[in-house]
Amino acid sequence: MPDLTHFDARGNAVMVDVSQKAKTERRAVATGQIRMCCECYQAVRQGSAQKGDVLGVARVAGIMAAKRTDSLIPLCHPVQITQASIDFDFLDQACSIAVTCAVNTSGVTGVEMEALTGVSIALLTIYDMCKAMDKGMEMGRILLVEKSGGKSGTYHCKRI
Amino acid sequence: MPDLTHFDARGNAVMVDVSQKAKTERRAVATGQIRMCCECYQAVRQGSAQKGDVLGVARVAGIMAAKRTDSLIPLCHPVQITQASIDFDFLDQACSIAVTCAVNTSGVTGVEMEALTGVSIALLTIYDMCKAMDKGMEMGRILLVEKSGGKSGTYHCKRI
Amino acid sequence: MPDLTHFDARGNAVMVDVSQKAKTERRAVATGQIRMCCECYQAVRQGSAQKGDVLGVARVAGIMAAKRTDSLIPLCHPVQITQASIDFDFLDQACSIAVTCAVNTSGVTGVEMEALTGVSIALLTIYDMCKAMDKGMEMGRILLVEKSGGKSGTYHCKRI
Amino acid sequence: MPDLTHFDARGNAVMVDVSQKAKTERRAVATGQIRMCCECYQAVRQGSAQKGDVLGVARVAGIMAAKRTDSLIPLCHPVQITQASIDFDFLDQACSIAVTCAVNTSGVTGVEMEALTGVSIALLTIYDMCKAMDKGMEMGRILLVEKSGGKSGTYHCKRI
Amino acid sequence: MPDLTHFDARGNAVMVDVSQKAKTERRAVATGQIRMCCECYQAVRQGSAQKGDVLGVARVAGIMAAKRTDSLIPLCHPVQITQASIDFDFLDQACSIAVTCAVNTSGVTGVEMEALTGVSIALLTIYDMCKAMDKGMEMGRILLVEKSGGKSGTYHCKRI
Amino acid sequence: MPDLTHFDARGNAVMVDVSQKAKTERRAVATGQIRMCCECYQAVRQGSAQKGDVLGVARVAGIMAAKRTDSLIPLCHPVQITQASIDFDFLDQACSIAVTCAVNTSGVTGVEMEALTGVSIALLTIYDMCKAMDKGMEMGRILLVEKSGGKSGTYHCKRI
Repeated sequence: MPDLTHFDARGNAVMVDVSQKAKTERRAVATGQIRMCCECYQAVRQGSAQKGDVLGVARVAGIMAAKRTDSLIPLCHPVQITQASIDFDFLDQACSIAVTCAVNTSGVTGVEMEALTGVSIALLTIYDMCKAMDKGMEMGRILLVEKSGGKSGTYHCKRI
Repeated sequence: MPDLTHFDARGNAVMVDVSQKAKTERRAVATGQIRMCCECYQAVRQGSAQKGDVLGVARVAGIMAAKRTDSLIPLCHPVQITQASIDFDFLDQACSIAVTCAVNTSGVTGVEMEALTGVSIALLTIYDMCKAMDKGMEMGRILLVEKSGGKSGTYHCKRI
Repeated sequence: MPDLTHFDARGNAVMVDVSQKAKTERRAVATGQIRMCCECYQAVRQGSAQKGDVLGVARVAGIMAAKRTDSLIPLCHPVQITQASIDFDFLDQACSIAVTCAVNTSGVTGVEMEALTGVSIALLTIYDMCKAMDKGMEMGRILLVEKSGGKSGTYHCKRI
Repeated sequence: MPDLTHFDARGNAVMVDVSQKAKTERRAVATGQIRMCCECYQAVRQGSAQKGDVLGVARVAGIMAAKRTDSLIPLCHPVQITQASIDFDFLDQACSIAVTCAVNTSGVTGVEMEALTGVSIALLTIYDMCKAMDKGMEMGRILLVEKSGGKSGTYHCKRI
Repeated sequence: MPDLTHFDARGNAVMVDVSQKAKTERRAVATGQIRMCCECYQAVRQGSAQKGDVLGVARVAGIMAAKRTDSLIPLCHPVQITQASIDFDFLDQACSIAVTCAVNTSGVTGVEMEALTGVSIALLTIYDMCKAMDKGMEMGRILLVEKSGGKSGTYHCKRI
Repeated sequence: MPDLTHFDARGNAVMVDVSQKAKTERRAVATGQIRMCCECYQAVRQGSAQKGDVLGVARVAGIMAAKRTDSLIPLCHPVQITQASIDFDFLDQACSIAVTCAVNTSGVTGVEMEALTGVSIALLTIYDMCKAMDKGMEMGRILLVEKSGGKSGTYHCKRI
């Protein structure tokens, strides 16, 4: 198992050298959820069908954030993503909304961080737009669903 | 209970008018956790005592992100924060690290989103620096711990 | 009539001193249009009623850009806007969409540039999302509709 | 004729997949104009010859904005531009200044949006620097002049 | 003499609390120099009188950077600057160009960092535009010239 | 010897065309120093061994700034850097800290500006964190140490 890779031999943080990695098609999918009171959940769910579209705004925020990941995460490499999408699922039993972000690139580094950042900012945007109704919302279950391309091969989260 | 406030009468998203709100001292505290495999957890925990300081980098990332919140969350007002800090706690039983972000301002809008954004980006930074060891890390329990100042008064999360 | 104010006595560009200006409620409204082929216009118009909401995305883009105006326009002062909204009107005869952006602040500088920037980026976003159907779209009639607050008093464009 | 491409089958906004597009030399040229009162026009025109160089500042603003296009336009792909220039023409009869922005890249997506964004921000910068003399300036005739490279071939605007 | 203020009692970096500081008029002036080969120096000096205006571009870059200081310096507070200017002096004997940046604000924190950042980015911009002629340029003597406003009173550098 | 390359035939600033340059491995190393009073120097030096880690924060700031160079330097091309590191040396005699930034890319333009920007922002961050102890710190000796890759070949500064 590899060590923490973002440090040099003296323990200093470093943006690791990826110049020798192969340029391949890479893809990552991440997910996360936000749980809210049922009244608030119904308002969001109805808005997405009609007007007052919380999730439409959150989708734009998530996609824009995915493009800016390297300016937010200090040791993350800049990457030119070739595709990004954000989808939502309604979990009625749990009064929760699930966010899924998929990102593709043709490059030398993976896009796990882009997908996870897209999910996180989409969740925060939902929180922002709903916080007048419910300050107790909780965001969680943010994890990498799958990843393909690159030397480390394909990864699938076993918990989903 | 208020409706979704970020929409006008026709259901269009707006950045709501805060010009009539009073300028007061406002504070928000948010928290969140990241759970990892125990080998990775030990590496981070030891690094924070010696060299290889994952959490030092995550702290800087979280503070910088808190300052940029309004550029990430579409309908969030710009705010001049007067203080920001990020703390970490080690949860040995759960092989988890808890992040707490506290933000102060003297202004017309609350800083819940700044504190939550600081937490989220600090968590993502930990993920980024540890992902070579463990891709299965999960971020969660991201919520507002407390909030004070402003018309809606003081809020304390009952779940913590 | 005042001279060009953004230059010092030697003709060098400066960000002018506003420290002596009074902090007042200020508001600006700007507008602009995009004209497209009628097939494309119908697609946008229908999308705004159902799914495929070009204008919802353009609204978010315009509001976010209004907040970043001072990072785009070199000599523009940073300003904390207290409200921002973007509205669209359908001009069926002209197969054109009109964008109106209104911005408020409580500060020492006007927000004309924020309103005009919001309009411009909303128009560009519409162009981006429609350019596969029509590359010949034209953006124009971008102007300040009204402005209030501050020493120079209220301004209303006589051409609208 | 293609449909609106920035939406998936369910009508959700998406950053479209360009991973299969060929990497070629691509170029786009866009233009736009700003009309002002003649007194103001003369001040700008003279300044560009001597000191008080409005257009020099606008040129820098436009080039910098072209580089940041993907952070302004939500569904626009990041692109590494290889060349950018901004030129101005004086239209004495109309007391107008024409802006032309040309952008090159070697990549998988076109640079129309970069060229149009460069034009728009250059125009807004001129407005900002002249607004103390004339608030009634109007920006318009913003359109794509030509585009080459990529599958859709060469485009020339017939109206210019 | 105060200790390092940007750390809490446990030695963790924090953005210090300025909420109790008085809002006053504050000003800072910083300077720095770039030394180049004489051929290059003459090219820049002549360009500033005629066309090819290296210093005009550097001035815009420095002012824009001063506005973004808090996004570059991790623990620096956001501040709304009310004035910014950049001036150049030609030091013929040394084939050097001196940059001076003055920044004003009406706020609770000083603007030393804004003035120093403006100087640094203006110097780097000169380097960028001249590096095809001379890669051996050296930037130095970057320091705070004066500072006024705020509890710590007025500071004048004794070395200038 | 080449002329100033960032201007067209009429003397207007342009982002030069690099589309015909070869994509090669490129590397640049830059350095700079900050001199401070000895009391302050000891505080920083001790902090880097224990807690209160000024240099850890400065390293993160420098790496993040290197990634954003093209948004700070107007005519600098966007570049995807593949590696970035920042190192510090203690110069006890001079009570100075030396910063070295190394940047790699696989692309068509050099990364001198990225390395120099990383150095400059790391130095400014040290200044920011120490300025409560010493406002008289001076930054200098900022220069390019070496550069390799690309048509102009390898460069080594003779003064180091």
